[in-house]
Amino acid sequence: MPLTLDQLNQMSAVDFAASLADTFELAPWVAEAASTKRPFATVTALHDAMIGALRASPAERQLDFLRGHPDLAGKAARAGVLTHDSKSEQAGVGLDSLSEEEFARFHRLNDAYKAKFGFPFMVCVRRHTRESILVQFERRLGNDAATEFAAALQEIFYITRLRIAGKVSGEGMPQVNGRLSTHVLDTHAGRPAAGIAVELDEFAGQQAYRIATAITNADGRTDEPLIGGRPLPIGRYELRFAVGNHFRSRGIEGGDPPFLDIVPLRFSIAEPEGHYHVPLLCTPWSYSTYRGS
Amino acid sequence: MPLTLDQLNQMSAVDFAASLADTFELAPWVAEAASTKRPFATVTALHDAMIGALRASPAERQLDFLRGHPDLAGKAARAGVLTHDSKSEQAGVGLDSLSEEEFARFHRLNDAYKAKFGFPFMVCVRRHTRESILVQFERRLGNDAATEFAAALQEIFYITRLRIAGKVSGEGMPQVNGRLSTHVLDTHAGRPAAGIAVELDEFAGQQAYRIATAITNADGRTDEPLIGGRPLPIGRYELRFAVGNHFRSRGIEGGDPPFLDIVPLRFSIAEPEGHYHVPLLCTPWSYSTYRGS
Amino acid sequence: MPLTLDQLNQMSAVDFAASLADTFELAPWVAEAASTKRPFATVTALHDAMIGALRASPAERQLDFLRGHPDLAGKAARAGVLTHDSKSEQAGVGLDSLSEEEFARFHRLNDAYKAKFGFPFMVCVRRHTRESILVQFERRLGNDAATEFAAALQEIFYITRLRIAGKVSGEGMPQVNGRLSTHVLDTHAGRPAAGIAVELDEFAGQQAYRIATAITNADGRTDEPLIGGRPLPIGRYELRFAVGNHFRSRGIEGGDPPFLDIVPLRFSIAEPEGHYHVPLLCTPWSYSTYRGS
Amino acid sequence: MPLTLDQLNQMSAVDFAASLADTFELAPWVAEAASTKRPFATVTALHDAMIGALRASPAERQLDFLRGHPDLAGKAARAGVLTHDSKSEQAGVGLDSLSEEEFARFHRLNDAYKAKFGFPFMVCVRRHTRESILVQFERRLGNDAATEFAAALQEIFYITRLRIAGKVSGEGMPQVNGRLSTHVLDTHAGRPAAGIAVELDEFAGQQAYRIATAITNADGRTDEPLIGGRPLPIGRYELRFAVGNHFRSRGIEGGDPPFLDIVPLRFSIAEPEGHYHVPLLCTPWSYSTYRGS
Repeated sequence: MPLTLDQLNQMSAVDFAASLADTFELAPWVAEAASTKRPFATVTALHDAMIGALRASPAERQLDFLRGHPDLAGKAARAGVLTHDSKSEQAGVGLDSLSEEEFARFHRLNDAYKAKFGFPFMVCVRRHTRESILVQFERRLGNDAATEFAAALQEIFYITRLRIAGKVSGEGMPQVNGRLSTHVLDTHAGRPAAGIAVELDEFAGQQAYRIATAITNADGRTDEPLIGGRPLPIGRYELRFAVGNHFRSRGIEGGDPPFLDIVPLRFSIAEPEGHYHVPLLCTPWSYSTYRGS
Repeated sequence: MPLTLDQLNQMSAVDFAASLADTFELAPWVAEAASTKRPFATVTALHDAMIGALRASPAERQLDFLRGHPDLAGKAARAGVLTHDSKSEQAGVGLDSLSEEEFARFHRLNDAYKAKFGFPFMVCVRRHTRESILVQFERRLGNDAATEFAAALQEIFYITRLRIAGKVSGEGMPQVNGRLSTHVLDTHAGRPAAGIAVELDEFAGQQAYRIATAITNADGRTDEPLIGGRPLPIGRYELRFAVGNHFRSRGIEGGDPPFLDIVPLRFSIAEPEGHYHVPLLCTPWSYSTYRGS
Repeated sequence: MPLTLDQLNQMSAVDFAASLADTFELAPWVAEAASTKRPFATVTALHDAMIGALRASPAERQLDFLRGHPDLAGKAARAGVLTHDSKSEQAGVGLDSLSEEEFARFHRLNDAYKAKFGFPFMVCVRRHTRESILVQFERRLGNDAATEFAAALQEIFYITRLRIAGKVSGEGMPQVNGRLSTHVLDTHAGRPAAGIAVELDEFAGQQAYRIATAITNADGRTDEPLIGGRPLPIGRYELRFAVGNHFRSRGIEGGDPPFLDIVPLRFSIAEPEGHYHVPLLCTPWSYSTYRGS
Repeated sequence: MPLTLDQLNQMSAVDFAASLADTFELAPWVAEAASTKRPFATVTALHDAMIGALRASPAERQLDFLRGHPDLAGKAARAGVLTHDSKSEQAGVGLDSLSEEEFARFHRLNDAYKAKFGFPFMVCVRRHTRESILVQFERRLGNDAATEFAAALQEIFYITRLRIAGKVSGEGMPQVNGRLSTHVLDTHAGRPAAGIAVELDEFAGQQAYRIATAITNADGRTDEPLIGGRPLPIGRYELRFAVGNHFRSRGIEGGDPPFLDIVPLRFSIAEPEGHYHVPLLCTPWSYSTYRGS
């Protein structure tokens, strides 16, 4: 159960620091430094104060902080010595179950990265698909040292913002979650299409992984967002709609086989905290989609 | 080089029959019977007369005619004893290169079909994809004898119509070819999208086979139809358009990764002699398609 | 301030009848008859009981009831002797301010109708535009007596349902209101179009009357429905969107003059209690609309 | 009957000059100067040479040339002393039949323009609607002298290019004509919509003038372009399609009154020599349009 912002504002400095000690990986001093800035009007202000404390510390201390992080999908992950937060974050994106080949690829990237920058690769894995992590990893290997140091701190910002949002409740919560939703309109009948089977896949290279299925309700929507209550992982997706069955059940003749049966919509997500509404307007002979709101 | 209708109208009955002897598989008597109906005003009338001769013959002779056909993808195909026409038609759809498993499936269907109906399964393979042939085969196995006899003659009609259209030129050619075309409009810029890479796949079950690639020209079209100059094989298809590269080359910001990159349009063809125009209207954030004309 | 259903269920039969006496025009006996069916679980059940009382009464009494109604836009309206409810209902659709020509047309229709059916024309004016009332009037003049008697009672049902919904609050309110809404998406930018000026006209023949104006908000919607909190009048409408100004303000080049400037959407409403969502998806070079939900 | 480019290349210099003397209003010296540049490979090159001769002449002579033109809709037009070409060009756009008020407005603009620039307002009227001419007139009154001198010569270029295209035939004709076309697809049925009544209006302020009507053919197109064989007049237009009748004739239920009956598409033309394809994709409940090709 999360702490409330009020509780954190009122407890002793020692208790405050202890409560948030593990927000910044192996760096309880960040929470200690932030404790002096209390009271905080919003949870966002609390997080900003912790980030401020990190940025205000000597460069060498920031570097030590970065160096204290585990490798992504590294030996620590395999050997089971990660902190609790790191472990569940890395597992969420499947980094705890890589093939030997993928493990080797991460291993090579980790080594090259540490050799160049002197600290492990930081990325807020909950904001990415497995594919996107590899894209980021290879792209950021090309950065110069100053750019990459800033990029690493930005990822620390995303990681700790999510941790704070999970630990603390109160006014002014940071926006950490996105939403992916859909809506199917049967523009042949002029009404929502109910009972449409919907599948959502995430891509990793040529592979597609099923991550959600749903059936549209009477309003042509899914009862729950396709992805919600968490950041939307940056990456490539395909939504598929079984519209052939729908029109067949309405007794509409659309050819044999029907011109449209399974309609795929392939799109990417680039804003983890955004709202992606990806509707389908459909007849047996036409369809359209768009990023809506 | 094809014969002209005029030549066929004017040659001796013997020469006429010889010229068209192999139109109806191992049944030169069909051409002989049609020779008495000359002259023909159109190539379609010539074909109709041959079909008329077949339908006018005794039921037993029609049955013998059907029995004279090879099994589809059968041992005759493997042993290389098909007539020239049958051989190239079966090769066109890939029936000469089945896996052992597929061969066994066709073998079982052939046996079941012949046991039920007393003649081999007829299908105009040039009007079907491999998948569609199997769908037809299994569906028609459920027919009663009279329905299936009519269905077999209808396929003979399609097969011989294509053969006549290949052998004879002249007025009133039968409509045997279809056309699949596309058109890409960039509705963000209000003009055709040139230089878009287009791929066309045909599906067989979960497998997809590349059957065409093209680049759109200045008018947003492909220089040649995606399929043309032949019947459109009944079956399931996917067109893919590399619109992400197009918008990137125009300097348009569509997210990182871009909301739309490769746009797939999945549709089926049910009318082999029809025109399927499947355009894409696209912005970086929306698209639509329809069966056009 | 409306009565509550609870109050009506608990008051004396006399008070109940007095409270609802004017629901059925000049027919307090309907409320008296319904009082014996109490308690009502829902407001809809209360109204159904009143309708039931009317239908259960002798045919002659029903006919007297119909005869007790004023002419539509008739002399009573002009002379100011309508009941309070009739007066405000007829004024709402502009029937109190007809031109001499329109008045004469209504007068002729009223006379022809009464001569044929023996009672005045009933129509729930709040569910219609002025144009639609005339369309209904002329169409129903062609009915036979039984069909028209049923049609008149159906209108009484609509009229009194609205009156009850205005007088009584409680569980199970009847659905008497519709909603007309819009939404503008800029599919060139991939986001809602804010600040778009929207106009809504209602048609009466060749004339158009402005009935609403609005500016789209940050979500591309209007803060209030274009029509809401009342039945949607059956009739023809045009929505217009000033998209040219929008794209100009974004610095988008769309031609001089711009290909699209004011986009009109012309549509009809046929379901007064329905939800009509009429969105606009727009680029400088394309747009689409549909009946959404 | 037009002269051929070959004839012009081979005739005497005197005959050449005489043949093209009236191309540049009251300035036969332009044709004389161009005669020395013969032979011309294309009609475009011939026109370019004449324009070159004008631009190469002394500034004072160019100014005299401009001064030799009649006022637009001026007294000369009313008094019937225009050259033949000027007369028919001004009549084409309705400038010979202005109301007193419009005449007065043109008169005031002409006076202000000549007072500022010293020559009459030049505009290629065949490339404009009446509304667009007034827009240009008022906009160009704000130009500085050099900008306006260049603008006037550009209009001379358009006027004389049209005259040359009308007088001379041969290789390399200049592109002087545009085309406005439409296409109606019934995406409810998946085929072209035949028999749709189409109207085209041109706007002048709040007034709309019918300029074309057509019925769609079996391919959903009009047999002739809505505007063709001439420049498309710059201006605002509305196309209207009677889709309600179409769906009613197909027996489709779309509401009473139908959600869509007359669909208006309002757009502007800015490129007189361009191709504007403005199709309608329509179901009883949705439609879309775009600038196509």
